Amino acid sequence: MRKILHGELIDASLSQLKDLCKELREEIVDTVAKRGGHLASNLGTVELTVALHRVFNFPKDKIVFDVGHQCYTHKLLSDRAERFSTLRSEGGISGFPKRSESPYDCFDTGHAGTAISAALGIAKARDIKQEDFNVIALVGDGSFNNGLIFEALNSIKILNSRILIVLNDNGMSISPTVGGTHEILTDLKEGFSPEGIRLFEQFGLNYSGKINGNNLEELLPALERAKEELKHRCVLLHVVTKKGQGQPFSENAPQETHGVSPRPSTKAEYSSALGEELTSLAKNDGKIVAVTAAMTDSLGLRGFFRTFPDRAFDVGICEEHASVLCAAMATEGMKPYYAIYSTFLQRAFDEIIHDICGQNLPVTFCIDRAGITGEDGETHQGIFDLSYLSFIPNLTVAIPKNIAEFRTIIRESASFGKPLAIRYPRDGEEGEETDFEFLKFEILHSTVSDIIVCAAGERCISIGEEARKSLCSEGIDFTLVNARFLKPLDENLLSSRKEKFVITLEDNALIGGLGDAISRFYRNSGRLVYSLGYGEEFIPHGTVSSLMRQRGLSKENLIRIVKDLYARR
Amino acid sequence: MRKILHGELIDASLSQLKDLCKELREEIVDTVAKRGGHLASNLGTVELTVALHRVFNFPKDKIVFDVGHQCYTHKLLSDRAERFSTLRSEGGISGFPKRSESPYDCFDTGHAGTAISAALGIAKARDIKQEDFNVIALVGDGSFNNGLIFEALNSIKILNSRILIVLNDNGMSISPTVGGTHEILTDLKEGFSPEGIRLFEQFGLNYSGKINGNNLEELLPALERAKEELKHRCVLLHVVTKKGQGQPFSENAPQETHGVSPRPSTKAEYSSALGEELTSLAKNDGKIVAVTAAMTDSLGLRGFFRTFPDRAFDVGICEEHASVLCAAMATEGMKPYYAIYSTFLQRAFDEIIHDICGQNLPVTFCIDRAGITGEDGETHQGIFDLSYLSFIPNLTVAIPKNIAEFRTIIRESASFGKPLAIRYPRDGEEGEETDFEFLKFEILHSTVSDIIVCAAGERCISIGEEARKSLCSEGIDFTLVNARFLKPLDENLLSSRKEKFVITLEDNALIGGLGDAISRFYRNSGRLVYSLGYGEEFIPHGTVSSLMRQRGLSKENLIRIVKDLYARR
Repeated sequence: MRKILHGELIDASLSQLKDLCKELREEIVDTVAKRGGHLASNLGTVELTVALHRVFNFPKDKIVFDVGHQCYTHKLLSDRAERFSTLRSEGGISGFPKRSESPYDCFDTGHAGTAISAALGIAKARDIKQEDFNVIALVGDGSFNNGLIFEALNSIKILNSRILIVLNDNGMSISPTVGGTHEILTDLKEGFSPEGIRLFEQFGLNYSGKINGNNLEELLPALERAKEELKHRCVLLHVVTKKGQGQPFSENAPQETHGVSPRPSTKAEYSSALGEELTSLAKNDGKIVAVTAAMTDSLGLRGFFRTFPDRAFDVGICEEHASVLCAAMATEGMKPYYAIYSTFLQRAFDEIIHDICGQNLPVTFCIDRAGITGEDGETHQGIFDLSYLSFIPNLTVAIPKNIAEFRTIIRESASFGKPLAIRYPRDGEEGEETDFEFLKFEILHSTVSDIIVCAAGERCISIGEEARKSLCSEGIDFTLVNARFLKPLDENLLSSRKEKFVITLEDNALIGGLGDAISRFYRNSGRLVYSLGYGEEFIPHGTVSSLMRQRGLSKENLIRIVKDLYARR
Repeated sequence: MRKILHGELIDASLSQLKDLCKELREEIVDTVAKRGGHLASNLGTVELTVALHRVFNFPKDKIVFDVGHQCYTHKLLSDRAERFSTLRSEGGISGFPKRSESPYDCFDTGHAGTAISAALGIAKARDIKQEDFNVIALVGDGSFNNGLIFEALNSIKILNSRILIVLNDNGMSISPTVGGTHEILTDLKEGFSPEGIRLFEQFGLNYSGKINGNNLEELLPALERAKEELKHRCVLLHVVTKKGQGQPFSENAPQETHGVSPRPSTKAEYSSALGEELTSLAKNDGKIVAVTAAMTDSLGLRGFFRTFPDRAFDVGICEEHASVLCAAMATEGMKPYYAIYSTFLQRAFDEIIHDICGQNLPVTFCIDRAGITGEDGETHQGIFDLSYLSFIPNLTVAIPKNIAEFRTIIRESASFGKPLAIRYPRDGEEGEETDFEFLKFEILHSTVSDIIVCAAGERCISIGEEARKSLCSEGIDFTLVNARFLKPLDENLLSSRKEKFVITLEDNALIGGLGDAISRFYRNSGRLVYSLGYGEEFIPHGTVSSLMRQRGLSKENLIRIVKDLYARR
């Protein structure tokens, strides 16, 4: 798409702006069809972003996009129109705001709820420096459930720096928005809530709304008024948009078109297996409950929620609360399963320690999207979970080798009785059931050799298996182990092995992961341990296999290392 | 104190109850004088707890104490009266609720904001099991700033299980309560806020208040009414108490008597040094700002806040928000210093990764109360920070050897320009300034020997120094290194050393800490690495030195290991 200059926006007539919205929408649909990405949320905010760019003067004025699922129009209108077709592809532009990409992006986002805190921090710095510009936080109503948003609202009067909060209310997180805040906003939308207005006032916000956020005739004057008001105080502008606006297939299926993959996966999904096994278990075990934080469908739990509505809880984007809720239910004999993406579980880190493992309670974390996730980039890679779980007392961490083994672990977890974390990628192979024993590694292939490869999870095990196949023809072989528990380690198996060279593979940061754990066990034993995994970096967007390969997690690299060690025997 | 039976409470006249309150207060004051502990908050809630025990039937009914700074009367009235004099002493009863201690404690707490989530989880399990009992969350107004509380409030209507929230409003966290929520509660206290009442209603709570929480005549009927109401819906009872009630010295200085030490420390405090250095720096550097989460005084920042009120921000118990605020200010060229206790920083784990290090922003974390903290027990030990910081890209982690070195690091940090975490214990020695170089270890004592000891932080270095002194007389010596940066490691120094035996000492969990980092660097080098630190456990209350010694962090243990290695040379 051609670059739109700010001057053009200023001079454009209303009908020209509407044409521009149409053009933007087409560009977004076309690009997402090719590259994947967040469709419904971006389609819903085209007019709103055009109006913001007309009324405000970016990058002097600054806008923080909460989560960032709605920044495509901003990218197209700022300085990335010509590169927009590279969206989410390796080396191309990111699907999220990125300061490193453009001066128009003032704050990186990806996780929910940071925008108001960020806007306040930028505005406070502005005031300390005695500069003059506007700061805007664009926040969806889904994030308004999140504790971080509330902490930021609470401090508006403390900080006393002017910001404009644009509340983009489409009634959805990824799942529909839920809870008390949602009802407050609904009352406001329906126009009978002086209490809601007073509530925002008590937090120091001048409430203004509701505005139809897909209608430029309403939006432009409302934003002009808000801009004027912002000279004197903090403003909350309540804008109502429709997710998927302008594309009937997206409007009618906003959950399904929230995130779109460029090509349908041909692989089986771990999330489906979770839903199937948990639903099956729960039929005979009334103590099983499932908890999610606004992502029921993508975690595979739609069926469970339908079958057991009284034992299924979507608490909104509230990762911390969900954890404590699980802990408490477990104190009363329930068996809570908390399904969540690896990167978002970081939000509940303290509660895993303080509430769940500190009390040694049988909560099972089903950690989806573990390892490199690909096109969403830095904020969505699940590459730290093994590291941040490895040192927590009382916690067991499992890494299934395929979906069949994942099913087995889920089934056995119901009688495990202690905190358990199971981490797995989005998709993989169903694979075969094999003998499973809790807390035991599995020897996948045993040979007389000086080399043992311990691999965690499907992706790494398949690298090991492929490398073995290739090396066979050269008469080189190694023992391959399914290292399916990070902790506790299978010390019996490790003790019994005599190989001099140990290679570990994991789809995780190296520091604090499986390689470190095995190396710690073998410390001072004379064994030589080589670990493949990720170094100290935030990994940008790209395809999973390419990102892994570049970091040495590939058949070729493993073959190289094995050959090198083989020569040194 | 003698055990009070539930029957006695039921039968007691009002005047007998008042006498009991007097007796409880004396017991608390006497015990805290001997054992230390939370004084003002416990004195403020004597009548409230007596009334709760009279009206409800514990442990069938269940009460969750948010944070747990107000559980002493509960312990005295349930089953720990006779053991109360052992409060906070090793092997004695805990200063916080502990399920392992008594069936009257239904949920362990220590960090703020978990009580409503926990009460909801317990109530939901009750309903699933079709049991019948009351669930109460006792929450201070300070916690009402916290995001986790808000997330729980938001889900009351989703979960649809009845709980009683007793809001214990004394206008204080450890510092005075701040922010928008505080104003809403203040309006309610002053009796002119139908909006406040409606707000709670929209979250699904029937508001009732305000009640004088230090007056049994008001409390008893109010709790009876709330108990009745609770049969039908969720109730919030707004109780106003006075921190320190009944002891003028505590009433008049609630911050100073929030936490009381059994004996005044004879050591210097790191927090005082932080305040001094930061205040001094900020006089010449207008970009320096300080942020705390409701603990200004105990972090040494009272002076900074007085001197630079426009660059000092106490945002309440909002550890996550404080982090994002710092990140955002840093994007605008500010130099934020975020002072916080080690254990509470766990709450901001995701923000350290996602907002600060993900954007490589120059925020300095001043991590106080790192390592074992002693009498507060499991929930307050600062033994995980090295582990949870070790793998975060872009982050530098410093561990000063004494207060003088800490001062130097603070001074130099102002021009460091990258994310920096400095971890230190509560108190120690001022010590001497020595040559300091960023990212470099310091050789404290060099000798020709096969043994090198790398110690992190004052406590561990002093173990090393004392062991050396003792061993000298036996003609045994080792090189002693001040390992003052966990990351990046001083690889140049480590590469240059030739010692065969490497001993590491750290006041942190072993997994993911300094020992692992040095062992990783020396992996496959033929060196033998032995690490002292903490195993996989939650460490209960006791004195710092005793808890460390029991876990092998002692001069005697180091001497034993050195002698053993010496014999094996």
